[in-house]
Amino acid sequence: MVIADLAGRARTAARALAVATRAEKDAALLAMADALEARTAEILAANVLDVAAAASADSTGQYLDRLTLTSARVTSMANGLRQVASLADPIGEVIRDNTMANGLKIRQVRVPFGVVGMIYEARPNVTVDAAGITLKSGSAVLLRGSSSASKSNAILVEVMRAALATTSLPADVVQLVPSEDHATVKDLLTARGLVDLVIPRGGASLIRRVVEESTVPVIETGVGNCHVYVDEFADLEKAVAIVVNSKVHRPSVCNAAETLLVHEKIASAFLPRITSELIASGVTIHGDAAFLACDSHVVAAEADDWDIEYGALEIAARVVSSLDEAVEHIRTHGTQHTEAIVTESAVTAQRFVATLDSAAIMINASTRFTDGEEFGFGAEIGISTQKLHARGPMGLTEMTSTTWIVSGEGQIRG
Amino acid sequence: MVIADLAGRARTAARALAVATRAEKDAALLAMADALEARTAEILAANVLDVAAAASADSTGQYLDRLTLTSARVTSMANGLRQVASLADPIGEVIRDNTMANGLKIRQVRVPFGVVGMIYEARPNVTVDAAGITLKSGSAVLLRGSSSASKSNAILVEVMRAALATTSLPADVVQLVPSEDHATVKDLLTARGLVDLVIPRGGASLIRRVVEESTVPVIETGVGNCHVYVDEFADLEKAVAIVVNSKVHRPSVCNAAETLLVHEKIASAFLPRITSELIASGVTIHGDAAFLACDSHVVAAEADDWDIEYGALEIAARVVSSLDEAVEHIRTHGTQHTEAIVTESAVTAQRFVATLDSAAIMINASTRFTDGEEFGFGAEIGISTQKLHARGPMGLTEMTSTTWIVSGEGQIRG
Repeated sequence: MVIADLAGRARTAARALAVATRAEKDAALLAMADALEARTAEILAANVLDVAAAASADSTGQYLDRLTLTSARVTSMANGLRQVASLADPIGEVIRDNTMANGLKIRQVRVPFGVVGMIYEARPNVTVDAAGITLKSGSAVLLRGSSSASKSNAILVEVMRAALATTSLPADVVQLVPSEDHATVKDLLTARGLVDLVIPRGGASLIRRVVEESTVPVIETGVGNCHVYVDEFADLEKAVAIVVNSKVHRPSVCNAAETLLVHEKIASAFLPRITSELIASGVTIHGDAAFLACDSHVVAAEADDWDIEYGALEIAARVVSSLDEAVEHIRTHGTQHTEAIVTESAVTAQRFVATLDSAAIMINASTRFTDGEEFGFGAEIGISTQKLHARGPMGLTEMTSTTWIVSGEGQIRG
Repeated sequence: MVIADLAGRARTAARALAVATRAEKDAALLAMADALEARTAEILAANVLDVAAAASADSTGQYLDRLTLTSARVTSMANGLRQVASLADPIGEVIRDNTMANGLKIRQVRVPFGVVGMIYEARPNVTVDAAGITLKSGSAVLLRGSSSASKSNAILVEVMRAALATTSLPADVVQLVPSEDHATVKDLLTARGLVDLVIPRGGASLIRRVVEESTVPVIETGVGNCHVYVDEFADLEKAVAIVVNSKVHRPSVCNAAETLLVHEKIASAFLPRITSELIASGVTIHGDAAFLACDSHVVAAEADDWDIEYGALEIAARVVSSLDEAVEHIRTHGTQHTEAIVTESAVTAQRFVATLDSAAIMINASTRFTDGEEFGFGAEIGISTQKLHARGPMGLTEMTSTTWIVSGEGQIRG
């Protein structure tokens, strides 16, 4: 099985990487960055073939945009690696440190996961981002990208491995899993004991498949049906800016807002303003009766509009009679990614926080801030929407495990 | 489906529990403790029926011992709940707190998981321990014990729920899943979205089944093929005490040692001593040629002895030529639970720590110290052997998730 072979080599490489110094890891990251820029022409030449094949397969413009590399995007990926090199090394950090009554010294220390599998869609930048973050966090990575990006991923991994070969780290800390064979996804998901963690990055159907089929531990990422609730005590200026930014700033990403909920007490003042602002920004509003009454461009919301992650310039919108109704709506239809409240009432904001159960809650801020960069992590491998291990943006710290080191002088249990 | 109904009620109860104060939770725990003691006679009467049925089914003495409750054991369970009440409330703890350059205040706060499923074998004490720890950590629990403990578990849960009914917390924070129907395990494991976490406690086959069938996130616990390595630089007095304690103190538990590795340079001095000590303690040694030569009571190790978790007074034992050979043996045969080294060399100890990949490493201490009580947690729901979320003993802190709360004044992303 190809995965067993790749994972075995990854394990060997991971053992060397686990004891590498920060300087060795940073040197490797910088070498990878330089190599990507130096070999931009080869990378773009391979990418053109992927893009052409996707275009002839009638892919959407958004899909093609994500797949396409440019010279600027290659530089951006290289700079991402340099940024990771500049971050502190999470490995070896002492998290807890106690001396017990019996003299035992107990330390909890951050250690690498070991071998991490990434399964993702047609975004070649994930190939480089994931390689950088896993390397710095001390784990070897098995990269299983989409077959439609196979030529791009192949050259990116080849360039990074060639750069690694000039350093003290083994090239096998970064390996590509063949995407021509669909079975490699299943093999990766069931490589229990060979792979320590699998992270899927992509749409809801990919995440669901990974969760259902995997026997390897998984961190789910990124499905976001995010809500903005405009409370009766909202500052309407802030509310307009936050709703528009949450929806329009980058509609294709998981922290973009998909549903707008407005308290009925401010509906008459707020709905005409936000409706015209959203429409002026090119947003299609799927509204309830109150929104429909505002503007002829509003379309009637269907039942399933409340559950859709549009990923586009569309938003579902309705009026609610209370904070509690807003909370119930979010609990029923949300994906527990990010919800925002706009309110000047600290009491209401506190109640919103206490009664929801999402990875991130924004009080008077755009949903778009749920992001590793915005949280100061410096790099992000994805946004976890599960409650286990890491919740919200995952940076270097979240990409580690821990171990307990207990030092004694011959202690035994009585 | 019975699980959907139970989980729905658990979710409702969990929402009330999530906003309960520490005082409310502690009062409930104390009421449960008092009720268990007050109704000891009923509990023992039910337990007698389970034990009689198991005895007539030819269960082992160890199995019957785990299943059997006594007045003292009921008091011990009640005192366990009182101990949990005395511990700090993990919920609401601020883990990280930063103000970003744009003025956003970002806090990471500890929150409950929500609904936790426990799947375990015929140990009625787990019913009470798990109920107490999940309640204090803010989650509702669905308890799926073994059918052979069904009468004991039924009365324990009935007593705890009756006590809860006298408090401000809903009784549905503690619910028993019927064990007569085997399908309830599968239903619990696939109750995705209804159950936030499943924790199996039991032997290797239970853990494996849970991992393979579950689509709900799992924390694996407790399979321990633990090793003691006696280094060439060992203090032999300490080594004898640590090996014997690690094996003999409580052989049925997961942190008991199952394999002894001895450096060849001290074999001639150490093997006769440890062999006679272990045999005097009633331990069957499955040894290599060097151990076989020490004593006629040593039996020859078979290939699979290195992989067995005996859970009894048996140990596999061999001589190794180096630290590296010991590490390779542990990496090949171990379960990454706990390994101990006995050595006076700090350099060797450090190398042992750096090259292994286990939940806990003991330096000159018994493997038996991998334990929530011994680590100062005050209570323990199990010992995680996975790298995700929690590794090693899991106390109240490990039984929580986190959320991000971001407070702004209208910030949007530019």
